[in-house]
Amino acid sequence: MSFRALQPGDLVAVLAPAGPARPEALQAIEPLYARQGYRLRLYPSCRAEDGYLAGPDALRLADLHAALADDAVAAIHCLRGGYGAMRLLDGIDAALVRRARKLLIGYSDITALHALWCREGLASLHAPMPASDLVKPGREDDETALFALLRQGLRAGDVLAPALDPATRAAGLHVGGRAQGRLVGGNLSLVAALLGTPWAWDAAGAILFLEDVGEEPYRVDRLLTQLRLAGVLGAAAGFVLGSFTEQEPPAALLREMLATLGKPLLAGWPSGHGTPHRPLPLGVRVALDADAGTLRLCEDVLRAK
Amino acid sequence: MSFRALQPGDLVAVLAPAGPARPEALQAIEPLYARQGYRLRLYPSCRAEDGYLAGPDALRLADLHAALADDAVAAIHCLRGGYGAMRLLDGIDAALVRRARKLLIGYSDITALHALWCREGLASLHAPMPASDLVKPGREDDETALFALLRQGLRAGDVLAPALDPATRAAGLHVGGRAQGRLVGGNLSLVAALLGTPWAWDAAGAILFLEDVGEEPYRVDRLLTQLRLAGVLGAAAGFVLGSFTEQEPPAALLREMLATLGKPLLAGWPSGHGTPHRPLPLGVRVALDADAGTLRLCEDVLRAK
Repeated sequence: MSFRALQPGDLVAVLAPAGPARPEALQAIEPLYARQGYRLRLYPSCRAEDGYLAGPDALRLADLHAALADDAVAAIHCLRGGYGAMRLLDGIDAALVRRARKLLIGYSDITALHALWCREGLASLHAPMPASDLVKPGREDDETALFALLRQGLRAGDVLAPALDPATRAAGLHVGGRAQGRLVGGNLSLVAALLGTPWAWDAAGAILFLEDVGEEPYRVDRLLTQLRLAGVLGAAAGFVLGSFTEQEPPAALLREMLATLGKPLLAGWPSGHGTPHRPLPLGVRVALDADAGTLRLCEDVLRAK
Repeated sequence: MSFRALQPGDLVAVLAPAGPARPEALQAIEPLYARQGYRLRLYPSCRAEDGYLAGPDALRLADLHAALADDAVAAIHCLRGGYGAMRLLDGIDAALVRRARKLLIGYSDITALHALWCREGLASLHAPMPASDLVKPGREDDETALFALLRQGLRAGDVLAPALDPATRAAGLHVGGRAQGRLVGGNLSLVAALLGTPWAWDAAGAILFLEDVGEEPYRVDRLLTQLRLAGVLGAAAGFVLGSFTEQEPPAALLREMLATLGKPLLAGWPSGHGTPHRPLPLGVRVALDADAGTLRLCEDVLRAK
């Protein structure tokens, strides 16, 4: 189910369902939305901290529910990832999510919320977040790309054809071919951490997007092995790999566990913890053309006026 | 289903389904079994190394199948954990496991094999392993305890009443009461990594044993949250917690996620990556008495002559 594109002056809700941000990052957020022409509402969780969480579950949950319930909110932009969104899953009012139909923007730990949005039949946007990405130097292109997309919309038939990281194809991380299916997934650690729960994606016939950051090789192996043993890799119709920004890039593992399956696989997609990080719609049907290096949308995500 | 206790001169198969051992550790293994009065067969995986794996999957799998198929083998003692046993799960001949009825001994990454044994209706022994524990200085008591148990057997009605770590009760990690059910689980990371796969335990009415090592707090949180969202914590009848040898012991998290459920919870059980590490039978029905600090076996595990 699609959303309307953002218009100048729209109100963006920024909240922290996962980890806390540093005060310096918060100060830079107001100018960010101002220069893009949006009004900003920073919810209390953005200023809360409780160890690795941005305040207690009840606060982070209340912020999410408040943003969902407010008709003035045009989009929910998560402050940053870290860890903690998953803790909220069984407390979130799923009927409110369906009814509110808010555009959700985020990635990394926010994968848990993408899973919920998808389960409720809603698209969402895997994209850079303010505190972890957009307020940092050198991310101007990512900022421009995200806000241009939010304004211009993303419709059925649109083709995403970003410049791919050539190193991945050189590493043998490529399988040609075409596949069509719902684009699901996100951060590999979270995709695995949702297995066995009601929020695990239905991988049958899906295009599985994966990215990860800072995991040791044996952990990446364990995560991919869990996906394999759970039948997720076998059920998927194709794969899109974002950035794997580990100390040792796990190209050999990804080749062994994914490329050998012979399904269309497109690696080096510029989404994830690396740069550039371009927005990717999740929860919508797409046509993957691994030869051309493109994703064509089969349904509307954001309708511009 | 129970096994016969070991007798002097019995042949013990030592193999490496997971990670590789250092050569120094291997040299100390022969004297270990010799002084306990057993014959030892070191399988080729014990001397193999392929990064974090003890050789290729095919070799580790072949060793396991060979030990299972050999009538002369009285017990399979895993060399060490690390990572890799889980990779073998869908390649293991489950019918051979059922038919061979070999006692399996190990822990940590070997949790994946305990899950398979349990799925095939067989008990197994969560206990120290040669390379990671028994050849190290200061582990003489663990060696004595394990081999005494292997000789003397473990029968229905036997009560395990080890000295518990008093720090855990002081940390509020205790819920009194009694519960009866199959004792399942092992290493928390592996228990979570099996969720969504056919090897996840049926947690309904089970007594869930957990231990872990070296995980950051947010990771322990994510693992327990996955168990919670998957319904495992809600379905279990009670909890036994072994050692959590993390840099910051996650007592507050374990209290929040487990003790608040109000089910009998016994922490400080001397099994896991800490010392002492006493053998614990898995896959068998037990009666947990959290007030007395005991586990009573409801069925035979090892029958002595």
